[in-house]
Amino acid sequence: MTEPSFALPTIRLKPKANARAIRHGAPWIYDNELVTDRRTKALAPGEIARLEDAERTFLALVAVNPKSRIFARVLDREETARIDADWFAARLGTALAHRERLFDAPFYRLVHAEADGLPGVVVDRFGDTCVIQPNAAWADGRIEPLAEALRAVTGVATVVMNGTGRARGLEGLPEETRVLCGAVDGPVPVPMNGATYMADLMGGQKTGLFYDQRPNHAFAQRLAGGARVLDVFSHVGGFALAALAGGAAQALSVDSSAAALDLAGKGAQAMGRADDLATRRGDAFDVMAALAGEGARFDVVICDPPAFAPAKPALEKGLRAYERVARMAAPLVREGGYLGLCSCSHAADLDAFRASCNRGIGRAGRSAQLIHTGFAGADHPLMPQLAESGYLKALFYRLMP
Amino acid sequence: MTEPSFALPTIRLKPKANARAIRHGAPWIYDNELVTDRRTKALAPGEIARLEDAERTFLALVAVNPKSRIFARVLDREETARIDADWFAARLGTALAHRERLFDAPFYRLVHAEADGLPGVVVDRFGDTCVIQPNAAWADGRIEPLAEALRAVTGVATVVMNGTGRARGLEGLPEETRVLCGAVDGPVPVPMNGATYMADLMGGQKTGLFYDQRPNHAFAQRLAGGARVLDVFSHVGGFALAALAGGAAQALSVDSSAAALDLAGKGAQAMGRADDLATRRGDAFDVMAALAGEGARFDVVICDPPAFAPAKPALEKGLRAYERVARMAAPLVREGGYLGLCSCSHAADLDAFRASCNRGIGRAGRSAQLIHTGFAGADHPLMPQLAESGYLKALFYRLMP
Repeated sequence: MTEPSFALPTIRLKPKANARAIRHGAPWIYDNELVTDRRTKALAPGEIARLEDAERTFLALVAVNPKSRIFARVLDREETARIDADWFAARLGTALAHRERLFDAPFYRLVHAEADGLPGVVVDRFGDTCVIQPNAAWADGRIEPLAEALRAVTGVATVVMNGTGRARGLEGLPEETRVLCGAVDGPVPVPMNGATYMADLMGGQKTGLFYDQRPNHAFAQRLAGGARVLDVFSHVGGFALAALAGGAAQALSVDSSAAALDLAGKGAQAMGRADDLATRRGDAFDVMAALAGEGARFDVVICDPPAFAPAKPALEKGLRAYERVARMAAPLVREGGYLGLCSCSHAADLDAFRASCNRGIGRAGRSAQLIHTGFAGADHPLMPQLAESGYLKALFYRLMP
Repeated sequence: MTEPSFALPTIRLKPKANARAIRHGAPWIYDNELVTDRRTKALAPGEIARLEDAERTFLALVAVNPKSRIFARVLDREETARIDADWFAARLGTALAHRERLFDAPFYRLVHAEADGLPGVVVDRFGDTCVIQPNAAWADGRIEPLAEALRAVTGVATVVMNGTGRARGLEGLPEETRVLCGAVDGPVPVPMNGATYMADLMGGQKTGLFYDQRPNHAFAQRLAGGARVLDVFSHVGGFALAALAGGAAQALSVDSSAAALDLAGKGAQAMGRADDLATRRGDAFDVMAALAGEGARFDVVICDPPAFAPAKPALEKGLRAYERVARMAAPLVREGGYLGLCSCSHAADLDAFRASCNRGIGRAGRSAQLIHTGFAGADHPLMPQLAESGYLKALFYRLMP
């Protein structure tokens, strides 16, 4: 882990590659931007290399992965940097200072990959436990010094590695979840926006809880006083429990996962609101159709579906699915009530997603105001030049009388 | 004010005009979309008319203004509607219900024009006083029933008409500000985000206070605990006083208006924080250059300039000005500190504004995370199909160590 710089392999940009973009902060170098000879292709996934421009000027230390279209990821602009536990500790310390300024309690996304200077690495913190997603080969191979630095910087006792998800496949990494140190003993109660969520750190989707929706939960709370709330694609009760914490009279969580709804129920119980949370398991579209058939009406309806358009080939189909969500949810909102529609699709940008939602609401025969557009929380920073890729969007509409 | 429908003049779309868009909620009809004969051109500004499609099917009741490029504004989809005090009261009641759900205290934008069903009409509420901006001829000519309805629905004692601003010029309306009923006795203290602002309802810019920045002020507060804060283009202390209320140690307000800075000082005094607010009067660029020369560094710097690109012809020049703001502000932020950059330009969309800010920060030699993108508050609803025109954007960056 303490390779001296002179011993590092060197990779070089093609003359036509955009060295300027990399000098200005672009974090990735694609395989077609590099001179790839036999030696380069033989580099081990995760190996550290020196990146030079076509004139042989040093640009950055990078982590390479010949198995990935993203051939190299910028780690450091200093040629003398050593990618060891101290280096990890410095990056983590910078990330931690920001989160400690934002939040009163240690429950947040601590590391959000490239923007936090740790390409492909996600770390979520749940009090005394951190969950690492090492979604790039360089970090996967350095999980031990990363975990060591994490313990030193944050003081957590437990570190879990969650090696699931689509990104690892693109890097040629296997699926694997394990406790690196400490112990995980059942779901962890997570305080957020005055609600209590139960996060299953070993078996849940992603890392068991979606911190990214925190500001959108908070916005929904402001609409929820005394309200009857419907939370579709509820997962562990994201919007439903936030609404109850914000003074909602009742909430109904809909999800296809019995395990997720069970955790939502446990969250409501922990909040002393078990009687006010109902759950309905099933396909979200089926349940919405059934509710419409029953003539059900709610003051606030929120739909937070999985990514219907995770990547470009799925875009058109994904946008039709978002339109369908809006069209089926709108009739469930009372006149003057509110409809929140979310997308966590990378491929669907804000304009395209909003157009789909607008169309769906219109096709339901409703007219609306758009009252709020929200994104992921500030513990999910973006690289400024990649900001249009911000995946999470939340649109809140008021459906007019 | 109670014209029977059969007596109303009729205007008609050209065969090629987009009747479908109007059926789906588009609020404006441009002069080139209409069959404009001598009779149509002779209609009085503000007159109510029936709008038909090219096949003579009724579409909406509209308010016309032959002097404006926006020839007609949709008022009601019901042919039998009467545009009188009761009609205003119904629209105001719907608008009020939303604001009362959002806010604990009666300080907000009560009517945000088209999206609230009152085209061209803006009403800001300051406790017991409402300020109307009737920026379209139809409302200017009906200011009395509008004010009457406003008093009846909200119970306010004082109603002011603020007839200033660019929009009125486009409608051929004169500048004029007067008290319609009640009395205005000096600046009004306005509670917002825990701060106290002093709003000069008779002499201030727009209606004396910018409610639209409320959520962005609130976000800045979260960064401000113990901080030294610089608020450039501060007006009556928007971000500075919010930061003090959020626990900032000190704030410096910079503005070219002595009157605005005086109100900022009075706000700080009302908060018991007069000693913690400094002010510096002058051109914002000059003051930023001077501060850089003095080696001044702040934990948080916010720049909320006037619209540099209010309309398309000013776009390129405006974007250069935003870049310059970012380039001059970035050096004033300490390592690991925060920079907030705002635009209230209609013509500069989010992507263009962000690109300018990114470039300015880069040219200052700083690297950054984008941590938050905010818009106007939920008391400034948008028509969904016109949402890309949301004028206010606030970008918050963290400048990396």
